[in-house]
Amino acid sequence: MIDTPYILFLGDVPDHLAAKTAVGIVDWRPDWCIGQVRLPGCQADTGLPDMTIADASSNGARTFVIGAVNPGGVLPDHWISSIVEAIDAGMAVASGLHIRLESIPAIRQAAAKAGVELHNVRHADRSFATGSGVKRSGKRLLTVGTDCATGKKYTALAMETALRAAGADADFRATGQTGVLIAGRGIAIDAVPADFISGAVEWLSPDAADDHWDVIEGQGSLFHPAFAGVSLGLLHGAQPDAIIVCHEPTRATMRNVNHPLPTIGEVIDLTIRLGSLTNPAIRCVGLSVNTAALDEAAAQDLLAALEGEHGVPTVDPVRFAGGSGRIADHILAQFSA
Amino acid sequence: MIDTPYILFLGDVPDHLAAKTAVGIVDWRPDWCIGQVRLPGCQADTGLPDMTIADASSNGARTFVIGAVNPGGVLPDHWISSIVEAIDAGMAVASGLHIRLESIPAIRQAAAKAGVELHNVRHADRSFATGSGVKRSGKRLLTVGTDCATGKKYTALAMETALRAAGADADFRATGQTGVLIAGRGIAIDAVPADFISGAVEWLSPDAADDHWDVIEGQGSLFHPAFAGVSLGLLHGAQPDAIIVCHEPTRATMRNVNHPLPTIGEVIDLTIRLGSLTNPAIRCVGLSVNTAALDEAAAQDLLAALEGEHGVPTVDPVRFAGGSGRIADHILAQFSA
Repeated sequence: MIDTPYILFLGDVPDHLAAKTAVGIVDWRPDWCIGQVRLPGCQADTGLPDMTIADASSNGARTFVIGAVNPGGVLPDHWISSIVEAIDAGMAVASGLHIRLESIPAIRQAAAKAGVELHNVRHADRSFATGSGVKRSGKRLLTVGTDCATGKKYTALAMETALRAAGADADFRATGQTGVLIAGRGIAIDAVPADFISGAVEWLSPDAADDHWDVIEGQGSLFHPAFAGVSLGLLHGAQPDAIIVCHEPTRATMRNVNHPLPTIGEVIDLTIRLGSLTNPAIRCVGLSVNTAALDEAAAQDLLAALEGEHGVPTVDPVRFAGGSGRIADHILAQFSA
Repeated sequence: MIDTPYILFLGDVPDHLAAKTAVGIVDWRPDWCIGQVRLPGCQADTGLPDMTIADASSNGARTFVIGAVNPGGVLPDHWISSIVEAIDAGMAVASGLHIRLESIPAIRQAAAKAGVELHNVRHADRSFATGSGVKRSGKRLLTVGTDCATGKKYTALAMETALRAAGADADFRATGQTGVLIAGRGIAIDAVPADFISGAVEWLSPDAADDHWDVIEGQGSLFHPAFAGVSLGLLHGAQPDAIIVCHEPTRATMRNVNHPLPTIGEVIDLTIRLGSLTNPAIRCVGLSVNTAALDEAAAQDLLAALEGEHGVPTVDPVRFAGGSGRIADHILAQFSA
């Protein structure tokens, strides 16, 4: 649906997390990405070569991907001239922002003149039914978090790979703009009208064979004061048989607010309590911890301690090879028994 | 914002609850409504005179209000000709459906030709920030429910009246399409993009004087598999100091799904547990029970039994005079102490 190769635009975002769209695409689809375009002051870096828009064009970029987000998905005014320059160079534009690209006159006019496509991947250009709560066939794994941006998408993508490697039939189901760019399909659930959150997830993950696993990307956190409603609607629509809790152990407060992080135990308890409304058999099958801020010994100690405390495989699927495979083996053993 | 008087269109909906928009307007703004238009087979009745669209026009109706809803807010094709007839007679149209009236070519063309306004009251034509979770000044009362359609809007409107009668400064804050039609302002929260549920409610109920009460209309139920995400985002954004649980005692399953109703105690417990994220002082101050399906003795017995069980004033504010006043007195005593 979106032409490749991509050139990734990072704007002038103040930290790495704000560029997680770009970083995610590079991690999971490196061969689709030829470089990055950054404005002065940008504090994020995907590791790809820095390019001007003219460089990117002469190197064959087909789509200018806005790979950074502000809280609330606002498009800063001073990014518009870069977008128009890319359009004038003949590139399509893909955006995961809430605002539709064509709502900005300069962008709409440039795209019409150049005859290029504008992809608003956060907008589902279809309507949904409200949720039914009826149990669907097939198995479902949902990643949930102690906060936003704790590795839910990465863990889900890693679990798709690991379940397939273990011989299971598994599909990643994207619920966020980066996931949609990586998977080429899915729904940016946070832009669906609130009434249809659960119904959209029911549509995204339909009936399947009894031994098929949908690996559904979680969003937000049940403990985040801005986004818990999204997380709960997604949980109810997903009807997960299994959850993996994703955690970043060095964070003091939840992203963009002053609230403290919940404990992993609180997240497991509340997710199971609330999730049992649409799947009473819901259980926790693993913990996925982003240990990037710890040295290796501290990381291994933490994983071992959390595994002892919670009694499920506890891994960092990005840092340590085999982690997602351990959870996959545990899942398949649990659900074949 | 919307011209009166109204003529209320009920379509051919199969039950009274599906016409709750029209019924609510008649109950709270009777002097704005001159009659109802019904199609063959309609099972709802507001009690207003039945009229043809020509009758309504000659009686001075200014706005044709679509006062009935289907699950999911779909507009049935066979309602379109009635809407076009009203437009051709010179009336504006107000709709609480998810679909925008102008998205239907016959309606858009008729409105352009007649020069009348189309009001999509479910659509907030503004954007919001994401929630901050920061505690706001002033007091807030939120109505919550064991299900959808259990009297949350009625109870909130009755509590606005009762708190004002008891000498408090109070404002009803509408979060649904009927509430917006009754209050002339508000947000249909179920149509806000999921990411902004809490932020929209924070905007709807801003900082206020310490002794001011916002009475916020609840939506859905934390136990409804389709709508719990909306209910939770609304709860977190509302930051209520006080909740009233609304209940319909004869319902066996939740509206439009096969799930059983939770108990009142479960709703109190879960609302307090989840609501404490943004207001740790949240407490239950009353129960509002729709006893219409019970005879008077059974209704009084039930109210007394529930009051004994839960220890808060338990009333039917529609059926028995003084009920909402008892809760208002309790609230003011609790919060002055």
